[in-house]
Order: sequence, then structure tokens, then C-alpha cells
Amino acid sequence: MAAFRIPPRLAADCHRLGRLVLSDVLLHRDAALPWLILVPRVDVTELCDLAAGDRSALEAEIDRACALIRKAFPDTTKLNVAAIGNLVPQLHVHVIGRHPGDACWPGVVWGKLDSGSTWPEDRLRELAAMLAGASQ
Amino acid sequence: MAAFRIPPRLAADCHRLGRLVLSDVLLHRDAALPWLILVPRVDVTELCDLAAGDRSALEAEIDRACALIRKAFPDTTKLNVAAIGNLVPQLHVHVIGRHPGDACWPGVVWGKLDSGSTWPEDRLRELAAMLAGASQ
Repeated sequence: MAAFRIPPRLAADCHRLGRLVLSDVLLHRDAALPWLILVPRVDVTELCDLAAGDRSALEAEIDRACALIRKAFPDTTKLNVAAIGNLVPQLHVHVIGRHPGDACWPGVVWGKLDSGSTWPEDRLRELAAMLAGASQ
Repeated sequence: MAAFRIPPRLAADCHRLGRLVLSDVLLHRDAALPWLILVPRVDVTELCDLAAGDRSALEAEIDRACALIRKAFPDTTKLNVAAIGNLVPQLHVHVIGRHPGDACWPGVVWGKLDSGSTWPEDRLRELAAMLAGASQ
């Protein structure tokens, strides 16, 4: 199999925050919301087609992403977790921190978020360090 | 704990298709798309807060819902699986069969689907029977 590469559309929309055992972890560039995207480094499109061991690993990494968002963004009152992939077939899971009054509340974020706000470099470094801590 | 009840908003939007070991299974009334909703009968809001045993059971039931959609709707080319819950805090997981050209493609369905089409009674009975088969 060729070396795994993040699909170009995701790479263009996101910062690369770090690497867990199974997944690369991206952060959507729009800073209006904490929007992580886990991309398992396996050639699969659907969650239900993952090998059992990879599925367990992915679920654990989803939980780590949720914990990171809750810790780094204490105003989070709801988490959205979704595998959609209509535009990017490579399996990827969105983990998004939400709260009433956020840029898309109570709607979903997909196709809606375009605030133009960007992440400060020091916040990106902080989130990457927290993720690296969570991966140990 | 009081007896579990499907949240009124979900009950109003959906047919009740059946009952698996952990979850009640609903079918969205809009027949433009096969849109199942699994509602685990536990008092939890977030996927990551489920007890480990319930999480495994839910993941298995998500896979069963995916298999049912693939079997009953062979034009399905993509599955969307999501726990959102901004409007209904009771944990529930959407499992939706998608294909290019469907009523919302390539966008998401939430807040978008309003085709006015309804499920024929015989199709509802057929899907309920397939789900009951899948639960054995």
C-alpha cells in the first residue's frame, strides 16, 4: 500500500494537530468552534467496515478527542461526533465542541461554518501539546 | 429510574421500527432517504460517557443498522453515522443511507430534509421484519 496521505480537501481545510496510534488528528482552520477531525491511517471508507481492532482504537481516540475539547474549551456543553464523508471518502470522524450561541447553534456545522476567524499560533501549539500528552 | 421514553421530538419525527438489545430503532418519517435513529435506553447524552459495555453494544447496533440499510436500499453508496443531539440531549445516533443525487446530496440531511414523501405501510412492515431478523 502507498504511504498514507491526508486527503487534499481535508489538508486544505485543517491544521495538522498531531498523530495518535491509529489516526492523524486535524483541527479545522475556522476558529469559531473547536472542530477536530480524526483520520485513521487505513484504507477504509465506512466506520462499519473497519477491522475490529481498528474500530476499538478509533473509538478510544474519539473519546480522547472529546476529552481534549472538554478540557481546552470549558464552555463546551455538547459534543457532535460524526462520520459523514460524502465529499471525502477516506474515513474520517468529526469531533466538535458546541454550546448554545456558537456560530452554528443549534444547527450542524457542515456547510455552514465560515466565520473567517483563525487560530492563534500559540493556541495551536497548546492544543498540539495537550493532544501529545493525551497520546501517551 | 423512570421507565425509558423516546424523547417527544424524536417520537414526532419518526416511526418506531423495533427494539434491539440496547436501543430502540426509529425511522425518520421522510421517505426520501433511509434514515434510522438508534436511541439507547440509558440516561446519557454523550457517546463518550456511555459505560464500556453499552458502548460496545451500541457500536454493534450501529453496524446492524448500516447492514440493514445496505441490504434494504441497494442504491446506498455512503453511510452517514452521527451523534449530534443539539436539540435532543438524550443520546441518539443517526445512521443514514446516502447516494449521489439523493434529496440532500452531497450535503448533510439535518435541517435540510423536507420532501413530504412518506413510507408505504408494507415497506415499514418489511423494514421492521428485517430489523427483527437482525436482532436475533
